[in-house]
Amino acid sequence: MSNMKLSFNTWAYSSFPVWVPAYPLDETIKRLARIGYDGIEIGAASPHAYPKYLNKERRREIKDVLDANGIALSSMLPAPGGGPGHNVSSPSPEERRHTIEHYKEVVELCAEWGGKTVLYVAGWQIFGTSRKQAWEWSREALRDIAKTAADCGVTMAVEPTPTDSNLVESCDDAIEMMEEVGAPNVKLMFDTVHAMYRNEVLTDYVYNMGKNLHHIHLSDNDRLPPGAGRGDFVSLVSALKEIGFGGYLTMEIGFNRRDVEPDQIARQAFEYMKPLISQ
Amino acid sequence: MSNMKLSFNTWAYSSFPVWVPAYPLDETIKRLARIGYDGIEIGAASPHAYPKYLNKERRREIKDVLDANGIALSSMLPAPGGGPGHNVSSPSPEERRHTIEHYKEVVELCAEWGGKTVLYVAGWQIFGTSRKQAWEWSREALRDIAKTAADCGVTMAVEPTPTDSNLVESCDDAIEMMEEVGAPNVKLMFDTVHAMYRNEVLTDYVYNMGKNLHHIHLSDNDRLPPGAGRGDFVSLVSALKEIGFGGYLTMEIGFNRRDVEPDQIARQAFEYMKPLISQ
Amino acid sequence: MSNMKLSFNTWAYSSFPVWVPAYPLDETIKRLARIGYDGIEIGAASPHAYPKYLNKERRREIKDVLDANGIALSSMLPAPGGGPGHNVSSPSPEERRHTIEHYKEVVELCAEWGGKTVLYVAGWQIFGTSRKQAWEWSREALRDIAKTAADCGVTMAVEPTPTDSNLVESCDDAIEMMEEVGAPNVKLMFDTVHAMYRNEVLTDYVYNMGKNLHHIHLSDNDRLPPGAGRGDFVSLVSALKEIGFGGYLTMEIGFNRRDVEPDQIARQAFEYMKPLISQ
Amino acid sequence: MSNMKLSFNTWAYSSFPVWVPAYPLDETIKRLARIGYDGIEIGAASPHAYPKYLNKERRREIKDVLDANGIALSSMLPAPGGGPGHNVSSPSPEERRHTIEHYKEVVELCAEWGGKTVLYVAGWQIFGTSRKQAWEWSREALRDIAKTAADCGVTMAVEPTPTDSNLVESCDDAIEMMEEVGAPNVKLMFDTVHAMYRNEVLTDYVYNMGKNLHHIHLSDNDRLPPGAGRGDFVSLVSALKEIGFGGYLTMEIGFNRRDVEPDQIARQAFEYMKPLISQ
Repeated sequence: MSNMKLSFNTWAYSSFPVWVPAYPLDETIKRLARIGYDGIEIGAASPHAYPKYLNKERRREIKDVLDANGIALSSMLPAPGGGPGHNVSSPSPEERRHTIEHYKEVVELCAEWGGKTVLYVAGWQIFGTSRKQAWEWSREALRDIAKTAADCGVTMAVEPTPTDSNLVESCDDAIEMMEEVGAPNVKLMFDTVHAMYRNEVLTDYVYNMGKNLHHIHLSDNDRLPPGAGRGDFVSLVSALKEIGFGGYLTMEIGFNRRDVEPDQIARQAFEYMKPLISQ
Repeated sequence: MSNMKLSFNTWAYSSFPVWVPAYPLDETIKRLARIGYDGIEIGAASPHAYPKYLNKERRREIKDVLDANGIALSSMLPAPGGGPGHNVSSPSPEERRHTIEHYKEVVELCAEWGGKTVLYVAGWQIFGTSRKQAWEWSREALRDIAKTAADCGVTMAVEPTPTDSNLVESCDDAIEMMEEVGAPNVKLMFDTVHAMYRNEVLTDYVYNMGKNLHHIHLSDNDRLPPGAGRGDFVSLVSALKEIGFGGYLTMEIGFNRRDVEPDQIARQAFEYMKPLISQ
Repeated sequence: MSNMKLSFNTWAYSSFPVWVPAYPLDETIKRLARIGYDGIEIGAASPHAYPKYLNKERRREIKDVLDANGIALSSMLPAPGGGPGHNVSSPSPEERRHTIEHYKEVVELCAEWGGKTVLYVAGWQIFGTSRKQAWEWSREALRDIAKTAADCGVTMAVEPTPTDSNLVESCDDAIEMMEEVGAPNVKLMFDTVHAMYRNEVLTDYVYNMGKNLHHIHLSDNDRLPPGAGRGDFVSLVSALKEIGFGGYLTMEIGFNRRDVEPDQIARQAFEYMKPLISQ
Repeated sequence: MSNMKLSFNTWAYSSFPVWVPAYPLDETIKRLARIGYDGIEIGAASPHAYPKYLNKERRREIKDVLDANGIALSSMLPAPGGGPGHNVSSPSPEERRHTIEHYKEVVELCAEWGGKTVLYVAGWQIFGTSRKQAWEWSREALRDIAKTAADCGVTMAVEPTPTDSNLVESCDDAIEMMEEVGAPNVKLMFDTVHAMYRNEVLTDYVYNMGKNLHHIHLSDNDRLPPGAGRGDFVSLVSALKEIGFGGYLTMEIGFNRRDVEPDQIARQAFEYMKPLISQ
């Protein structure tokens, strides 16, 4: 019996990146709690939780819905790409500034809702920017954000995202970023779908990130629910037990296409993973 | 010989919806001009043209690059979905207000760069919002935006987007929206990929929209370049000549996946369409 | 209940033929033992066991890891192809000499680690070499190697490899090679994937090789784990029981592509085969 | 009219990584010259050119065949993986030493045959080695090899190989490696198939490597001949002309499977590329 918990990321219920189907956050929370999830990972995207759109009252309302349904906020993250970009490694100083501010707003909102983890997508290189320059911008941004996070009791989890980006691509890239920032509340996470995109072995990430592994995204290939593709979640859970991982396994699935029923994949993922972590 | 012009939409060169590859706007303008395009459709997304990130100097710079390369701004549009949503039919009043403001900023930027057309994506229903309510929010938003557009000499082109959304799905939906708003600078457009998604006939849109047809998006199925899929662009061009269409045929292609070389699809689309419209 | 044993070949954990993922030999031994394998078949390839790279100390270390994990060395083999070729039928006399020496080093290393079987890949014809000539070179090489093997208490197992080569392709080719060499420590083996490549019946190999059948490679089509493809392993095991086969069934799987998790296929193969041989 | 030249890599005619079909080097040289290639890239693998197997006489013989057929040695490279590994980033000090020596032998052989370029595959991480450590080993190895290369008038070309390895994966990785080594005879190259594996844009590599771009491997996806897949070789050649590239475009194709006729793909690639570079 492990102390790992199961969480579900809200993209599949939001307008990012696919516009529909989309559900209000209250509705999403209720459905995920009913399926049995311990936690919910809320993307800071419309129509759920874009900080600028949430006044005090609305924030309190959501907190109440979370409490009433007995589900915790496992984590939060911004939506990368699109209009404002949210690329900390953009050549535009305005975008970098805006993105850092946005991260801080997400951190504060996360803390307000009782969460302790915000994910860090390290940005990506635009043609004409060297990797070195992009890396430095990203590292300095994370240093800045991490201070605000520390004040809020929030840990930043650096995630390699090779499927979508070109800066922090691998397990080692994430480790180097964490080490260069050197803040106690900057830790690591990985998403199984990204590791599989690189044709890498999931347990390698577990052993290499080790005690700094703070958070996990679960997804089978093509953003299928765990167990529906070729991922080895049996070995993964076994390795996680071996290193004593006690955080959230968060499903980040099904948001890449429109013809998905969010409840179905949420249930399917839960039913596959629950017995695995309970053994 | 028609007086139709060819334009290329910048999504494939930007970070929306796929983050990479992405090129600075200056570079994108130069490449499209070199291939031979008459116009460029600039998405108001990072790293190209998110209005809040562009100071006066940068705006002048881009205007100069457009002029120096002899390419016109055919049109602009916001990036829907993601963090701020930009859904004029959102149940969140803050999001609706923000999106209307964003549209106005895009309209002004467009005029500043010599453009005369901004596309209108009418939003989409979130679970819990009735179609009637969403429609009214969208119509009122467009009325509001169209006033600013009129002041700027800009036409708003209503686009049915059934592939992605659930509000203005068809040719007739767009016509009804235009008629209900009833402003002289609110016109119509359609995207061939959306018409094909509904298994509809491309020329039906031409004849039905008729003299109100102001702008066109060209894309073969799966966002392939025209001529690479199953679309009938020969009949389409012939119908357009018949009604005397003199606007831009804008390629909106290749932005839905990462493994695309923007220059390749831009060149391929140009080489297929140029002879068709020149005959 | 048979006295067959299960073993796992290390290619999937090494840099041959696919460079990554690759694990140190110590790690590989531990993982295979934990899954439950009786034996391990160690390929004489980097980073595991290229004889020239292993000093005395390292050899003792590995022996200790084998013993500590309670897993036996079922067999060894060289890596064919690549830089030094290791083709006993090469037209280059330098390559033939080098390859014979390499085989002898592998035989000695095998004995040192308590193993009693080395596999013999009979080489392949290069354009311009007659089959007769290639055959003679291979036979003489095996005669030479078998003497050293006899001194070390090691049996050489001739394997037909039609999928990859063009000299010893069939059951009968292997039998002829064994008979022409005529040494008591030269025996036979077959790999199910090679038999299936020729669209042959697995049990035919069992009955034809009979009492000279010394070793077996198990693999479903496309190097999938047994049970994941179209191979008939039920009939195979039944025939093996009938002839009283008491050797190792060695999985040689998953090494042909990078997107494989070695632990996953090792576990999957074990879980499929263990009940079959235990009945 | 550019001054680019066409070359063909010998893997498809050798026993690496697929054992057959394989042809003697003399035969391979004659065939490629007859098709029209300006140069040949010889892999240092059996049965062609494993340095240890080539005595003085044989080396002179090959030099004569090259001269008699009017074809130049464009470049050489070792075969990575397999028995001796040839991984400069291996945790085994014996392997690292051996690999550095092997590289030096290849450099000397290359110079002896009139070649001026040797490719550098920067190695790969074995589980348990940090990227930082692997990188340092690789950089020091290259520094060492580059000295011998300088004495021989040979340039080392660093190649990103993400398809197969996990150390120098991207354009920027190669640039950083070159810069850290800081030797005038260490330059850059890229292989189109590796860039496409990362879903990257070919011309980005051209512009970013710029004047340091010394050599190129051409291959369409899946190691198909250029023009047979989805690669954009038109834009590539155009960008190469723009930066004034005057080196070899070397086909490294068709070696990943057995059911290929080397002459056919060599001819097909030549016939597609020759007109492109001649315009």
